[in-house]
Amino acid sequence: MDQPVVSLVTDFGHTEYLAAMKVAIWRECPECRVVDFYHDVLHGALLQGAHLLVKAVAEIPDAVHLVVVDPGVGTDRRALVVRTDGLTLVGPDNGILEPVTRGTNDLEVREISFPAEGASPVFHGRDLFSPVAARLARGDDIETIGRKVPSLMALPSYGFDRFGDRVMTRVVHVDVFGNVQTPVPVKAVADLVDSDRNVTVWIAEDAHEARFVRTYGELDLEELGVLISSSGHLEVALREGPAAMLLGSRIGDEIAIDAE
Amino acid sequence: MDQPVVSLVTDFGHTEYLAAMKVAIWRECPECRVVDFYHDVLHGALLQGAHLLVKAVAEIPDAVHLVVVDPGVGTDRRALVVRTDGLTLVGPDNGILEPVTRGTNDLEVREISFPAEGASPVFHGRDLFSPVAARLARGDDIETIGRKVPSLMALPSYGFDRFGDRVMTRVVHVDVFGNVQTPVPVKAVADLVDSDRNVTVWIAEDAHEARFVRTYGELDLEELGVLISSSGHLEVALREGPAAMLLGSRIGDEIAIDAE
Amino acid sequence: MDQPVVSLVTDFGHTEYLAAMKVAIWRECPECRVVDFYHDVLHGALLQGAHLLVKAVAEIPDAVHLVVVDPGVGTDRRALVVRTDGLTLVGPDNGILEPVTRGTNDLEVREISFPAEGASPVFHGRDLFSPVAARLARGDDIETIGRKVPSLMALPSYGFDRFGDRVMTRVVHVDVFGNVQTPVPVKAVADLVDSDRNVTVWIAEDAHEARFVRTYGELDLEELGVLISSSGHLEVALREGPAAMLLGSRIGDEIAIDAE
Repeated sequence: MDQPVVSLVTDFGHTEYLAAMKVAIWRECPECRVVDFYHDVLHGALLQGAHLLVKAVAEIPDAVHLVVVDPGVGTDRRALVVRTDGLTLVGPDNGILEPVTRGTNDLEVREISFPAEGASPVFHGRDLFSPVAARLARGDDIETIGRKVPSLMALPSYGFDRFGDRVMTRVVHVDVFGNVQTPVPVKAVADLVDSDRNVTVWIAEDAHEARFVRTYGELDLEELGVLISSSGHLEVALREGPAAMLLGSRIGDEIAIDAE
Repeated sequence: MDQPVVSLVTDFGHTEYLAAMKVAIWRECPECRVVDFYHDVLHGALLQGAHLLVKAVAEIPDAVHLVVVDPGVGTDRRALVVRTDGLTLVGPDNGILEPVTRGTNDLEVREISFPAEGASPVFHGRDLFSPVAARLARGDDIETIGRKVPSLMALPSYGFDRFGDRVMTRVVHVDVFGNVQTPVPVKAVADLVDSDRNVTVWIAEDAHEARFVRTYGELDLEELGVLISSSGHLEVALREGPAAMLLGSRIGDEIAIDAE
Repeated sequence: MDQPVVSLVTDFGHTEYLAAMKVAIWRECPECRVVDFYHDVLHGALLQGAHLLVKAVAEIPDAVHLVVVDPGVGTDRRALVVRTDGLTLVGPDNGILEPVTRGTNDLEVREISFPAEGASPVFHGRDLFSPVAARLARGDDIETIGRKVPSLMALPSYGFDRFGDRVMTRVVHVDVFGNVQTPVPVKAVADLVDSDRNVTVWIAEDAHEARFVRTYGELDLEELGVLISSSGHLEVALREGPAAMLLGSRIGDEIAIDAE
């Protein structure tokens, strides 16, 4: 975009904490546009936060991406800035930043040494992360933020395995329509999705018959579909209703998609 | 207003899908102001979406109004731009755009032929409607958007009948306070509302005594009132509580208001 | 900040009413930045609204603060502008504006005499308060808004008492994490909070053991903590869960914190 952008993913809801973060950003970077990417991450749900960050980076690669899902605020968990393949990420070192860096090049991780005297030990989102994100967005040199560290914490539960025509993964997000979203990218399953095969969705011990479709309107009412979401990931959906409720599935649950 | 405005009515909530639409708008029109008019339309509720569009047009007639309540996304439902009496509307051709055009002049309907190669079949809000709305807001000629078509789909369930002192209609919105809102404009009932008559509100087979008032504070606690809402439509309300819960009424329900 | 700011606290949610207020602000002051400080005040909850205003003023002292929690809209309750110690507040005279003025100097209260012909009797937020806030933000003289009046309505239930090592107050807010917030400022309890004493939290007749901590991560799971929130007030919290649910406490409930 034509102006500096800070994109936010948090578990704060649209509350006073979000407002405080935006004010902190605008104090450092009045010309910054702030994009409220997603604020309803379940409290402390790193898998979901990581997936929303993957989505946010796909939509706005040119933004500074600030993620505050931070149950360890005020403890000794580190605060990081990550730059990789032109992406800039800011957030706590609890695993949430790692999935989006997979497969990228030139990973640079820095520990924020922002002068945080007077920072509230319960709100680094306002007192530490937001000013840093704003400074990076306005063009400050990343070297002013802190020293290089060798690595960031991984989030191994975010991922998938494919065995033949079976994909095993976890639910990483349930969207506003109740669609069940996975971290499986289209490129990993393109040969399955374009097929006419029957497909079975496994949640816990339960098997649900489903069908590969392009869009919701191709489904009959109450028929379960498997499709590629607007972010390019494998999704399980109903035509006009919450698939998550039908499946009884929650974020973190194991899910398998089996194209016989 | 002094800058181009795009106003949004959706059933996306304040989620990543809304963020993606805004980013798509700002990419085409960085100077556009985006107004989040209403995003909590019940999924696929065309009556409610149509009413929120009526409200939005009344508040910001000079905006481009983009409505995305689109259960038929990716099917053969058409994507439209409508211009009438200086209003500009963008959205799917599923009936949601029609009520606000009633009684207007110089209706022009165009089918969007935006080059949507690569558009996600599940998210025209981002890949088709938002860029079109942004281009119209920044001043692009409507002829560049698509060819004229003769008409748009109607939403006949949005409306009302008056028989003497009785008005029959449907609930089209329940607002954040639980007020029950109808599409009946003040001009159609001004002679009733200004009166001192008793009034009965019928929902299903149930009759509820009520009173015409100007504002909520004139009611006793638990007393049902009928009044003109801030958008100029007939509304049923309690003083400090959700009338919709008291009445057990939902969007789409028939409701009659009888001024004996 | 570098541009005029209007900060909003309402019980409107993120709805069409909020949108209408913003449009009304931008019509008078297109260059105004609007901060959505908090919109989920429980309907008519003056204690909570007053506390969110206290928080908002602490975060953005340089904004015009508009508060619309207004169950008496359209009745004879007055509409006020308050200026004190450089703060500017706009809202109804129902008590909600008073707590934040305590201890300030040079209190000036004016009754808004904005020409409100045609104003909806059910929506002064849009038709009266927003235009006034916008005009003050853009620099209009406060004398153009209305005449001085001697005082504003008080909210005596907002406050606390300290008896020795016991603090008695009320719950004024439950935040998005379920943390139970009080109006007790850190300076009134600093000697208690920094100690190693046991602490008991009383809600109704129930005593709950707790511990003073600096941040959530110092607590064990399910252990109740008492700490200083990011706004500098006494708060009761769990490490990863809603303390309000554990305590069964709601806004307005009496709460006592006893450091033996």
